[in-house]
Parts: sequence; C-alpha cells; structure tokens
Amino acid sequence: MKRRDFIGAIAGATAATALTALTACGTESGSTQMGADCSPQKPIKWKMVTTWPKNFPGLGTGANNIAKLITEMSGGRIEVKVYGAGELVGAFEVFDAVSSGNAQLGHAGAYYWKGKIPAAAFFSAVPFGLTANEMNAWLYYGGGLELWQEAYKPFGLIPNPGGNSGTQMGGWFNKEINSLDDLKGLKMRIPGLGGEVLRRAGGIPVTMPGGELFPALQSGALDATEWVGPYNDLAFGFYKTAKYYYTPGWHEPGTAMECMINEKAFNELPADLQSIVRNAIKVANADMLAEYTARNQQALHTLLTKHNVQLRHFPDSVLKELKTISEQVVEEEAKQDALSAKVWASQKAFKEQVMQWTEVSEYTFLKARLL
Amino acid sequence: MKRRDFIGAIAGATAATALTALTACGTESGSTQMGADCSPQKPIKWKMVTTWPKNFPGLGTGANNIAKLITEMSGGRIEVKVYGAGELVGAFEVFDAVSSGNAQLGHAGAYYWKGKIPAAAFFSAVPFGLTANEMNAWLYYGGGLELWQEAYKPFGLIPNPGGNSGTQMGGWFNKEINSLDDLKGLKMRIPGLGGEVLRRAGGIPVTMPGGELFPALQSGALDATEWVGPYNDLAFGFYKTAKYYYTPGWHEPGTAMECMINEKAFNELPADLQSIVRNAIKVANADMLAEYTARNQQALHTLLTKHNVQLRHFPDSVLKELKTISEQVVEEEAKQDALSAKVWASQKAFKEQVMQWTEVSEYTFLKARLL
Repeated sequence: MKRRDFIGAIAGATAATALTALTACGTESGSTQMGADCSPQKPIKWKMVTTWPKNFPGLGTGANNIAKLITEMSGGRIEVKVYGAGELVGAFEVFDAVSSGNAQLGHAGAYYWKGKIPAAAFFSAVPFGLTANEMNAWLYYGGGLELWQEAYKPFGLIPNPGGNSGTQMGGWFNKEINSLDDLKGLKMRIPGLGGEVLRRAGGIPVTMPGGELFPALQSGALDATEWVGPYNDLAFGFYKTAKYYYTPGWHEPGTAMECMINEKAFNELPADLQSIVRNAIKVANADMLAEYTARNQQALHTLLTKHNVQLRHFPDSVLKELKTISEQVVEEEAKQDALSAKVWASQKAFKEQVMQWTEVSEYTFLKARLL
Repeated sequence: MKRRDFIGAIAGATAATALTALTACGTESGSTQMGADCSPQKPIKWKMVTTWPKNFPGLGTGANNIAKLITEMSGGRIEVKVYGAGELVGAFEVFDAVSSGNAQLGHAGAYYWKGKIPAAAFFSAVPFGLTANEMNAWLYYGGGLELWQEAYKPFGLIPNPGGNSGTQMGGWFNKEINSLDDLKGLKMRIPGLGGEVLRRAGGIPVTMPGGELFPALQSGALDATEWVGPYNDLAFGFYKTAKYYYTPGWHEPGTAMECMINEKAFNELPADLQSIVRNAIKVANADMLAEYTARNQQALHTLLTKHNVQLRHFPDSVLKELKTISEQVVEEEAKQDALSAKVWASQKAFKEQVMQWTEVSEYTFLKARLL
C-alpha cells in the first residue's frame, strides 16, 4: 500500500474507515477514529500563543484564522487553541514558549526577538525596506525564508510569514514634526530597527506590547507611539490622547508577522498534516493583507471625520534624513554577527532589483491613476 | 495510544497496520484503499484545464501549483491532472469544459468570458482600476467574491481568485506612442475592457490566446500586443519582433486569474476536502503574485541589457485621455445588464475608498523611498 493512499484512508474519518475500524476492533467507533490497538484516537491538540490581545482585529483574528483553517482542512485531526497575550504566557514570552514546546505554534512579529537573534528584525520590517508584496517575494522566491529558517533552527523553531499589515502609519504625535529636532527627547514606542533610527535621531525608543500603549500614552510614560494602521489604531483609541497622525510608516513599509512552529511537534505530523499546517499559515499570510487593505480606509475616514484627527505627511526633508540614518543603522546592524550580514546581503540585493520593478510597474500605474 | 503516535505508526507502513486492513476485509489490499463495503477506494481523479500553454511560467506553473497542493494536503485522496491549452480542450473552451463537468477545475482569466457573462471582466482587470492587493481586498473583504459566485452560479461553476500577475506592462509596439493618434488603426492583442478602450481610441483590439501571439506579431497579423510582464514576455520572445516596451499597464493594474470549480464535483467532496481545494487555490493566488514580483525585474533587466529593448513610459497626456475613455467604457459596460451594474457599483464604491488608503500609505511610502 502506498504511504499516501493509506494515510488518506485514515485521514478521511469517513464512514468507510470507521467501519473498517469497527470490524477490525469489534467496537462501535461512532465518529471516533480507532488506533492500531483499537483504542479511540483523539485529535492532536495544539496550543498557539500570540503577542496580541485576544481576538485583536487583524493580528489576533489572523492568528485565529490559522487555527480554524488547520482544523477545517484536517477534518478535525488537529485542534488548535489560541491564547492571547498574557493568557498562557506574556506577549514577549511567545518565542520561548514555542521553542520549549509549551506551545506548538506562536503568532508574533520577528522584530520582537532582536535581543535573542540580531538578524530577526530583517524578517519583519526594515526602515525604507520592502513593501508587503516585495517581502513575500523575497521570502518565498528570493531565498529569504531559507535564511529565516536558518536563524530559528537553533531554537527548534520553524518560522513562517504569518500575515502582513501592508504599509503602516508613521505614528501618533501630540506635536507637529517639522524637522528632525522635533524628535529629540521624544519617548516613542517603536520596535525593531525603526527604534534604533529614532535613537540616533535623538529620540527615546520604547518596545512595549500593543495592549499597554494606550495607558502609557495617557499617563505620559510615552510621548508618541506607532502601532499598525487606522484599523488597529482606531480600536486602541489613540485618537483620544494624540492629535496628529503621520504618514508614511517609513520604518514599517510592509511588516511581516510570523507564525512559528515547534519543530519537534511538526516533525511528528504525517506529511499531509504538515502540508496543511504550512498552507493554512500561507493562506492567513495573504488574508491578513487583504483584510487590512479593505478596512484601513474606513477606519481612517472615521478617525479624520468623527474624531477630528489631523492627518500629516512627514516633510521630505525629515524623510530624507531618516532615510540616511536608516541606511547607517541597517548597515551597522548587519555587521553584528555573521547571520545578520548574510541575511542583509540577500535582502539588500533583492531590494535593489525589486525596487526598480515596483517603480516601473505599480508606482508608475498609481501615479497614472492619480492624474 | 495518542493519535499522532498512531498516525506515525501508520505512516511507517508497518506490517501491523497492513494486517488490520487485511483482517477487516478479508482480502489483500495491496496499494488500494478499502471502502466501507470492502471494495477498493480509489483516489478521486480530477482534471484541470487551462487557457495557458502547458507549464507556462507563472500562469501554467501557478495552475500546476494548485494541483500539487490539493494532492499533498489531501494525502493523495484527490489527484489533479493539469492540461495545457489545446491538450484536452482549446484555450477558450475552458469555461464550457468545467461548466459541463468534462473537467472539474479550470484555470483562466475571467475577462475571456465577457461574451458569455458581460460582468466577467470586472473580476479580472478594469482599466485604471484596482491593483493586486486592492483586488484581493475587494474580492475577499469587500463583497466581490460573492458577486462573482452569483455570476458563475447559472453555469454550475464556483469561481475563485487563482493568481495575480501584479501590475502588467503596457505592451509591445514597433513605434513610439506620443499621442492618441498613434493608436489609430493599430491591430493590438488586448482582451477585456482594455480592448474596448483601444477600440474607442481608434485601434483594433484582438483577443487571442498567448500561445498564438508571437507568430501573429511576426506575420503582421498583429501590430502590437500586450501579454503580462517581463517574466512572461521574455519567455514568448516578443523582443524579437517589437522594439518598444511600454509602461504602465493602465488596462491591467493587477490582473486576477481565476480557478473555477465544477459545483457538482465540489459538492460531492467531504467538508475537509472542500476546504483543502478552496485553500490550495488561495495559496496559489498569493503565491503567483510573489513569484511575479520576484522574477519580473530580472527579466526586465535581461530585456533591456541583452536584447536592447527600449523601455518607454506612456506620456501623461495619453494616459489622461485613456483614463477618460476608460471611465466612459466602464460606465457603459456596467449598463449592459443588471449584474454588471451591481458588480460595478460594488467595485466602484470600494475603489473610491481603497484608492485613498493606497495613496496615504503605500504610494506615499514609495515616493519617500525614491527621495
């Protein structure tokens, strides 16, 4: 019997296989699959921990989506229970929880693990770097995912792109940003490489889980924050404590979320379930971008018209300076260790190519559409 | 025994499990799965017909990808055989073949069926319309897919977005396009609504499968052609017969391919296989865009440096006129029947919103990246 045919027979949980089990085991199995020793086979139960508040729109629901798809495609052979930040482990303990096997899946952003893996930030967002489509192109067709796997391998983790926010917003401020001087002394929540850029521009970058941002802004522990974009930022109510909403998110042009899998748990799955897990995550990766693209404008409209938020563009002079600093930061970060150097060399070469195509194609079209 | 251990044991194709099958049915099953009545259960065999040349890069391989994923995730319970254009049916017979049940899946572009379903073009490409990400956002989160399902329902077909090329190129010409006059009398392959726009601009639009384009250009049956973008256009060798390569693809800003499913065949599947089929197509939908994004620039570089192709931008004045004509064409097409009107009303409202977000976010970022 071919391996895949036989696994298929088992996998189906059809009346056919149930009956075979009945005859073989001499018991009524009902909808329960029977094992080789004729004991009932329970579904594999996996846990997914996340860095997001439970059911948080876009990010949390994207994680839920992965769980749902795995169960649905596997016909219930795997059940995944999703935990919001702080339910099973804290937001920033997700990496360790999946690495140790306390959870089998973790949904997060790779730049949160920069302290453990200097190269991690390159897999989520690089200032003035790749857009969402370019990031997916690099990861899936430019060697990026293989490098990410290399980075997580020592921790027993398999990384996957697990959603993309698209281009994020530049953040919430209580004063206008007219020159780089306006960033000096500013305590701003901004993770990853963007945070390093702010530091060099004279600001004070803070890394903090999303759920803590609103009270921190209200208490003055933070002067400014970026988070994601209108859809999420509206949900957190930042408009109640900050007046100006800046674009573009120069620091996060197309942030890739991640869904990491505990390698040992993954290797114990048969090939069809492995494929289902990987592809459920792939579906959710694309789905999140579609959802953000659909919902951000409505939320932006609500922010501008109902809550009187002021939309502002960073001046070109500020963007140019931030770009120069960003290039320095990224080049220096890339020198931190051999893996960072290898990852950045790959992404940089890809970026130089793909930027040209984006300019010739989509950018040229978008300009024409605005004529 | 834990279920996953059980699957592990099965996966090993041990003598023990083979014996279970033998005992249950009292026959030697060999490589054949056994059903409830102990008759052999063969894999479900599906056919996928396509409008593309067999294994054509991006489009044909995208179709292959769907077939592979379905088989892989179903553990071989479904096997899908892919046919290139002309192998089982001609390129433009794909719709009928899947509708009649001669094939269960069809991979194509919806605008090819404009003659049968006037609204079809809105689901693939609208001149000066939605980009790839915006199209996915409309289809999955803006009500687009429900309308597409309504359009195909009378034909017993379930449509799905089955890949996206991203912003296409404007086409191959043997003369420069400096004004709208240069389009007059031009025999150009350009399908869907873009073709209507060309007709009103004085040109002669032709619809022709990709595989026939090169000889038609060579013989002079065509003066010009658009196809997809550098990756595909290089493969067809258009650079051998045309000198100028124009951007942007104003007529196809983010063309959605389709993978249609025969509804009856789909309904006969158990829920887990239905989910696997739908999600395999979703994966391939995103995957194709990543592949094109990664590969177009390399091909463009080859075209420009090795084959001395001249890259040209349509002048703003030409784009403005084409945009005005496009708006007229689309509004008139939308009046053809009630469904077209409903579909365009939905897409137009969505476009007016999403365009603003794209401008605030990604477009503003791309401008900043070029500073």
